[in-house]
Amino acid sequence: MAITMYDLAGSEANRRFSPFCWRARMALAHKGLEVETVPWRFTEKDKLPSPNDGRVPVIVDGGTGVHDSSAIADYLDERYADRPTLFPGAAARGLTKFVQNWTETVLQAGLVRLVVLDIWKHIGPADQMYFRHSREARFGGATLEDVVKDRAARLPAFRAGLDPLRRTVERQPFLCGAAPAYADYIVFGAFQWARAISDFELLAADDPVFAWRGRMLDLYGGLARKSPGYGG
Amino acid sequence: MAITMYDLAGSEANRRFSPFCWRARMALAHKGLEVETVPWRFTEKDKLPSPNDGRVPVIVDGGTGVHDSSAIADYLDERYADRPTLFPGAAARGLTKFVQNWTETVLQAGLVRLVVLDIWKHIGPADQMYFRHSREARFGGATLEDVVKDRAARLPAFRAGLDPLRRTVERQPFLCGAAPAYADYIVFGAFQWARAISDFELLAADDPVFAWRGRMLDLYGGLARKSPGYGG
Repeated sequence: MAITMYDLAGSEANRRFSPFCWRARMALAHKGLEVETVPWRFTEKDKLPSPNDGRVPVIVDGGTGVHDSSAIADYLDERYADRPTLFPGAAARGLTKFVQNWTETVLQAGLVRLVVLDIWKHIGPADQMYFRHSREARFGGATLEDVVKDRAARLPAFRAGLDPLRRTVERQPFLCGAAPAYADYIVFGAFQWARAISDFELLAADDPVFAWRGRMLDLYGGLARKSPGYGG
Repeated sequence: MAITMYDLAGSEANRRFSPFCWRARMALAHKGLEVETVPWRFTEKDKLPSPNDGRVPVIVDGGTGVHDSSAIADYLDERYADRPTLFPGAAARGLTKFVQNWTETVLQAGLVRLVVLDIWKHIGPADQMYFRHSREARFGGATLEDVVKDRAARLPAFRAGLDPLRRTVERQPFLCGAAPAYADYIVFGAFQWARAISDFELLAADDPVFAWRGRMLDLYGGLARKSPGYGG
């Protein structure tokens, strides 16, 4: 029986844009597990199965529910230990945490200030009210329009901040080396989030990060590339 | 027979402050290998064994010379494959490259602008001339004094930039997880560099990064803690 995954969706049900849900989606594909996704919106908090903290991803595997992308990765790797691991080797889990913390404090923190208004444009009216209210509070009361209005000027600094990633994937196919694993999915989730809802050109076409993102989009039969989004 | 390592030294021969040499020194200790270090100064380019690109670390192991810290780590791990690995598991080498690239583009790039004048103060007259000339050229002609003069004002941003490291070592003992490996030595090398030549308080005493640095200083019988330096 396929695993069920609750997946953040835009006003179009097949536009999936949560970076955390993309981590889980790629992890499921890495493990070769079947999944049926359920589109879920920000304002459907009561529609999530237990354990419900009002956020996605949540998976239900038989009778077991697991929420939070990190917990899902750990669950899948332990429950399906006979399938390809998400954390290849004794140091991988620890080092993957560093990649996760870089992704959340640098990459996603920079990205949201470039694309947050584009998210708002791709969700339905009820979600728009919720999203604007909650996100503008996070930005100290600035409107979403104000947050992104100088984004073109901030793009060079954002791109420069990708240097640790750039230098790595310039010299090896994936963050994890010759083959992708969970650390790649964490970083990719951020780019797939942006790609799903924004036509803002984050990466120059000759950027090694762009080439790596292309390799990630091609994985598992083009799973991520086939999902609605903008650009290459 | 012990391995010989050429190690950057200050005007005092036992003050060792190269971040790259500290990577190699910790890697040798991790492998449980005996080493005899040779103090070497910036202006002693002709005193290095072949292959000589004018920089340290260089090791000589029997008849084999290896230079460059990354090449040394690879050499040691392959030549002494029966000893504890520096790269535990299939993904570790790839992920370690990401840590290295973060260390070089974020951590060391930030650090040098805080402590470069302190390096100058700890080296002999001939090295001082060479160092000032070469480093001031890198800083676009700014004097070493100018580079560091607003360092107190830049300290909060430097500390904030450590968030990926901080969040990681707050929740696990080492970057590589339960035990240290080469990625830890790369990041530690940068802090040991600063510690060797500067009394500027980079880290608050309640910072999880400070606690991790303490665990690193304690490794291998306090190898790094016993080396001349400032602070804890």
